[in-house]
Formats: sequence, C-alpha cells, structure tokens
Amino acid sequence: MTGAPDAHVAPGFPVVGVIGGGQLARMMQQPAIALGIGLRVLATSMQDSAAQAVRDVRIGRHDDLGALRAFAAGCDVVTFDHEHVPPLLLKTLQDEGVVVRPGGRALVHAQDKLIMREALTAASVPCPLWAEVETPSDVTAFAESAGWPVVLKTSRGGYDGRGVWVLDDAEAVHDLMTTTTLSDGARWLAEERVDFVQELSAQVARSPHGQAVAYPVVRTVQTDGICTEVVAPAPGLTDDEITAAQHAALTVAGALDVVGMLAVEMFETRDGRVLVNELAMRPHNSGHWSIDGAVTSQFENHLRAVLDLPLGDPSAIAPHAVMVNVLGGDKGDMYPAFLHCMARDPGLKVHMYGKDVRPGRKIGHVTVVGDDLDDLLDRAHHAADYLTGVIDE
Amino acid sequence: MTGAPDAHVAPGFPVVGVIGGGQLARMMQQPAIALGIGLRVLATSMQDSAAQAVRDVRIGRHDDLGALRAFAAGCDVVTFDHEHVPPLLLKTLQDEGVVVRPGGRALVHAQDKLIMREALTAASVPCPLWAEVETPSDVTAFAESAGWPVVLKTSRGGYDGRGVWVLDDAEAVHDLMTTTTLSDGARWLAEERVDFVQELSAQVARSPHGQAVAYPVVRTVQTDGICTEVVAPAPGLTDDEITAAQHAALTVAGALDVVGMLAVEMFETRDGRVLVNELAMRPHNSGHWSIDGAVTSQFENHLRAVLDLPLGDPSAIAPHAVMVNVLGGDKGDMYPAFLHCMARDPGLKVHMYGKDVRPGRKIGHVTVVGDDLDDLLDRAHHAADYLTGVIDE
Repeated sequence: MTGAPDAHVAPGFPVVGVIGGGQLARMMQQPAIALGIGLRVLATSMQDSAAQAVRDVRIGRHDDLGALRAFAAGCDVVTFDHEHVPPLLLKTLQDEGVVVRPGGRALVHAQDKLIMREALTAASVPCPLWAEVETPSDVTAFAESAGWPVVLKTSRGGYDGRGVWVLDDAEAVHDLMTTTTLSDGARWLAEERVDFVQELSAQVARSPHGQAVAYPVVRTVQTDGICTEVVAPAPGLTDDEITAAQHAALTVAGALDVVGMLAVEMFETRDGRVLVNELAMRPHNSGHWSIDGAVTSQFENHLRAVLDLPLGDPSAIAPHAVMVNVLGGDKGDMYPAFLHCMARDPGLKVHMYGKDVRPGRKIGHVTVVGDDLDDLLDRAHHAADYLTGVIDE
Repeated sequence: MTGAPDAHVAPGFPVVGVIGGGQLARMMQQPAIALGIGLRVLATSMQDSAAQAVRDVRIGRHDDLGALRAFAAGCDVVTFDHEHVPPLLLKTLQDEGVVVRPGGRALVHAQDKLIMREALTAASVPCPLWAEVETPSDVTAFAESAGWPVVLKTSRGGYDGRGVWVLDDAEAVHDLMTTTTLSDGARWLAEERVDFVQELSAQVARSPHGQAVAYPVVRTVQTDGICTEVVAPAPGLTDDEITAAQHAALTVAGALDVVGMLAVEMFETRDGRVLVNELAMRPHNSGHWSIDGAVTSQFENHLRAVLDLPLGDPSAIAPHAVMVNVLGGDKGDMYPAFLHCMARDPGLKVHMYGKDVRPGRKIGHVTVVGDDLDDLLDRAHHAADYLTGVIDE
C-alpha cells in the first residue's frame, strides 16, 4: 500500500471505498462529486482508469487481505468495480465489521454461475435449461433433453465471453473437457442454447432497507462476447415482456439480498419469454446510457443504494438512447479522432476511460439520445467506428 | 507548493490547470472525467471544494508568481475558477509561454468594471448610463442626467454584491466616498439604477479559433447580491429580446476575445431592451442548471473551449429547468436533510460542494427539470430551504 491524501468531505458526509480501479469506479466519481461523497479507490497502479479521477487512491491487490483491511479502514461502506474479490476475504472483512455492499453472500451469485442457477431456480426466476455436469457423458445426457448445441460454462472466473463455449456435439465436449483445467473452486455448468430474438438487460438498484427502482429494459448486442451496443429502451418488447423482465430483476435483487446496482442479462425468446442469462452486482456496461439518458445514472444510484440513501428516478429523459462501446484499434493517440467526432456531432456524448489503446480493449463509449432511433444508431456507430479506426471518414 | 501525484491521461490527451479550488473547479472535474482530460487544481488547502475531487492538487496562492509558474508547468492550458489573479502576473505567465485562457487582455474586462464599460460602449453593446467619477460632486452631476438613486461601484474587487452601493442622494454619496478607501488600482464607477422587469444571464462558450455557441437566456434572481434562483429559459421574453440578449453576449465574446465560458448578466427593461450589467469569464452560477438541463453543460463547454475542441450542443433537454442555490444555515451536518430531500423528490438533482456550513455561504445547489414550471419552482425551493434549515417539513 502506498499513501495518498485521505478523502475529505463536509461534516456528516460518508466515504465510499471502491475495490478496483477500472472505468466503473472512474464513472462513480462523477455522481460522488455531485453528492458530496468521498470516494476512495483500491487500484493496482496510479495509472488505472479510476486512479486518475479521484484523490484518495490506495495501491493494492483485491486478493490481499492486508491491503483490503487497510483500504477499508476509514471507509463508511466498501463496494466494487468488479466481482473478483475472493468470497472468503469478503467474509473475513464483514466478520471484522467492515460494511461491504453488496455483501459476500449476495455477491457469490455473481461470482459462481452454478450457485446463481440454483438460487434463481429456487426463486422461480425463469432460466434456460441447465445442469451441473462433471463428465462429457453428463453433457451428452443433458443434450438429449436440451438439444444441441450445448452451452458449457465454467462456474467461476469467466467474463466478457471467457469461460463460455458453444459445443455442437459429443466429440467437441470431450475435447474441451479433457483439455481444460478448472480454476480453484470452479465447476462445470451445461445450459440450453437459447434461440433468442434479442439479448436484454434489466437493471435495478436496491438499498439495504429494501427500496428498489427498475430502469427501462434495454437491448444489448454482444460481439465476440463483449457488449458493443445498447439501445434503451429495447425495441419491440410487449408490455408483458417488459413487466416480466423487470419483475425477474426485482425478484432476483430481493431473493439474493442484493444491495447496489444489479444487472440481469436475459434472452428474449421467440415465444415471448425472458430467460435469465447472467448477473452483475455493480454498475454494468448495459447501463452506461443512463449517464446521459436517465434522470439518475446507474452510477449515482449505485452510490445512493450502498449508502442506504433514497434512490433516484431511473426514468429516461428522451424516447431513445444509444450507447456504443469504443474499442481500441490501431490509433495509439485517440485525440485527433476524438476532436473529429465532436466537430461532426455536437450532440454526441463521448466518454473516454484514460486507458492506453490495445486492440479490442474497452477504452470508452459514446452515447446519443433523441427521438429518431435510426439516426441515433448511425451517429453512435459512426463515432465509435471512427474512434476505433474502423472507418476514416 | 506541496506535492501531489501528477495527472495521468491517455496518450495525446491534455491536462488543464484550474487556478482556484472552489466549486466551479470541482464541477469541471465531472466532464473532465468523461472527456478523458486531466485536471490540475491550484488550491489554498487540501480541504478546498475542488481539491477533494481531483488527484492533482497543488497548494499555493493565486497571487504568488512562483506558485503560478510551478503550477503551470506541465499543464497544456491554464484557466480559472475565479477572476482574482492579478493582471500583471497573467501577463508575465503568458509572456513566458504559458497558454492562459481566457487570456489576461480579455480577463481584465471581468476584473475591472470601468474597463468593461469602456470596451462595451466602444463595441456598441447596450449598457446602463455610466460614468467614471472621482468626487461626490461628479456623482451628483451624473445623477442630474441619470436620476436618483445612483448605483456606485468600485471598478475592482467586488463580487456577490460587495463593492456595489445604491445611493439615494448627495449626502449618502458624500458619506460613502469620504469613508471608503479604494483598493489598489480601483476607481469609482457611477451607473444608472435600471428599473428592470427581471435580471437575465446570457451565456456563450467561445473557442480560440472563434467558434461560439449560445445557451438559452435565463432569468436570475439575486437576494442580497447573491444569485439564489435561476429559471431556464427566462419566462416571458419576446423573440426579439432573446435575440438581443444572445447577440449582445456573442458580441462581447468576440469583441473582447473571450475564450471559455462567458456569462453576461443583463437587465430586461420595461420597454423591452436588454442592458448589460456584469461579465464573468468562467462557468457561472447562472449556468449550473446546464449540468442536468442541457445536452452539454457549461463546465464541459468551458473545457472544450479552452482546449480549442469543437463545442457541444448547448440546447436544453426539457422545456424548463430551475436551479436554486443552497446557502448555509444552522445545520452543521447537512446529511440528514440531504437524505430527506432525496426521499421526498426522486427527480431532484442535488449538488453539494463539500464545504463546511457557514450562514449565507453557497454550499450547494439543487436542480429540477421538466414541463411544469410552477411545480419545478416549488420543488427546488422546498429542497433548498429544507437543506438550509429555513423550513423543517
């Protein structure tokens, strides 16, 4: 741990500690400034995205109990930029009196997909068909009822498409399972491959005393396992589907005692059902549109929720919002492209994360809000593609 | 000067230095985070409002050339939270190659009201009747044409109502002028007391290559010389008045070569004219509504302008916005009141500046946007009054 000036706030105002120095922690600093809240960030380097944006930076690892203890001292609440803190360390911190939100018993459902499936099924939340599997023949047996292809997942350690495979037959299953070593504590999970109309995300914020608000349900587009486009609200949903998606998200939040933002990623099926795919218990890429497109952003409501403050209005401020991620391309210096995009579109909201460019890395996002969805999609994709370097005009 | 970690940004991205650690610098940090810009703040203490919100804080005085030089080293552009840097020091910095925006030759018009009146009159911008005066008999002579009461001002050093007197007769003038010592470089300015319908503020952003955008003209309400309420757009203006106000602001920006945000405070007269009262060359209290009420806030456009980036759309996102300042009252710990306001009004946007409470001090503001102006006025005033402690229900 290296030193930094402590957070300073007005009398009575709290300090929130955020474990992880990525763009989610960075974007929490904007509403923290408005709310008069102090933010302390546990980063791995002073160059981390969030470490650039806050005064009270501590350097340390999220899996080092000593670093976590020293970090938590002086924070009123500790929350997260990611879900990688080992459950045992979270339990230790909580047993020692640190206020951790979401708590370890909730967070484990976002860390382990098999524990999540068990809890959601127990809470009657609609999921794809699933089964814990140990051997290739278990998977083949599962496929006899769920059909091929099968989605095979490691229960822990995957993100942005890692730890997930779509397998067409028994031979592919055998090849994968006999050549892949599970990480510590991980198990195998087999799931039905859902033939979906679109992928959705339903976000809710929930506070310790149980207040919850639901954001508009959005459409997400994944490319190579990475979220690349979000449209708010999701086009073409029936009122029943919207209600079902929001109801599922609120049910999950209550059943798992989630505190803070919860993103429930779902599939809309061809027969009008919504099935839960994944959970994230923190601000989520599918909610970045809310910074510029909602009365209260997901980052503000995350802070309000973990502080047990009353939650803000999650309503959209315009009929449509489109968010497109900016991925690193071949432009090491993005600034000229950034200037071009601003000149071309004065209504564009550009968000850069302060990261060095690496191909495929999430380095920023753009958002546009307004009345004409096709126009918004054109503008957002043009800006993101230009920033990445996919197009140069 | 004490040390702090340097700002870190992605390759090619600039660092903006802000002289002054008040709430205006604090609120620049929110768009700086989005834009991927580094912000360095020159504050007088680590407890200053802006010093809480940025990583790269330097401690020093704005009238200490050594501190200013050390601060400016490593900044791509230097700008301001206030207008108190002595003109000679700004000239020295600029002569040494520091990029200062707005430059000293523009800023002097916001520092000296007599220089401002001379320049505006030369540029044919409508002003109240005015005259430089040296003696009580000069003021009496001025009043013979302009009428009583007369507004007497010191040309330098006044803000938030200080350095301004409304005087009813020759005796009051004599008493004031014979008992008041002008600060260094200040002169006396007499002005006509304008019988106004309402006070207006017209804000523009202007960049070094001359691009300018005009914000909606707003109504400001001053109480004891302090701006307490802003309504955007100003109610009841004719199209001609809006055009005249925006035209005057754009003319001032161009004639004085302003770079960054310019606020032109004006009087709407009973015969439908707009007369310029004061100038501010920085984000201004009359533009705080734009954080929650415009596509591009005044703080974002100030950064874009001083960096010569293309300017963002200044349009309002809703028919009406109301901003009310939160002044310190008798509540040393504002947090319980803050919680109450959020519970009562989920659509309220609260902005706290991290300041200790002192009676009458600007410690925050609230904004609401929507369709029903009367409702917005009720909500904003209730929240501000409750936070201050004027009401307790």
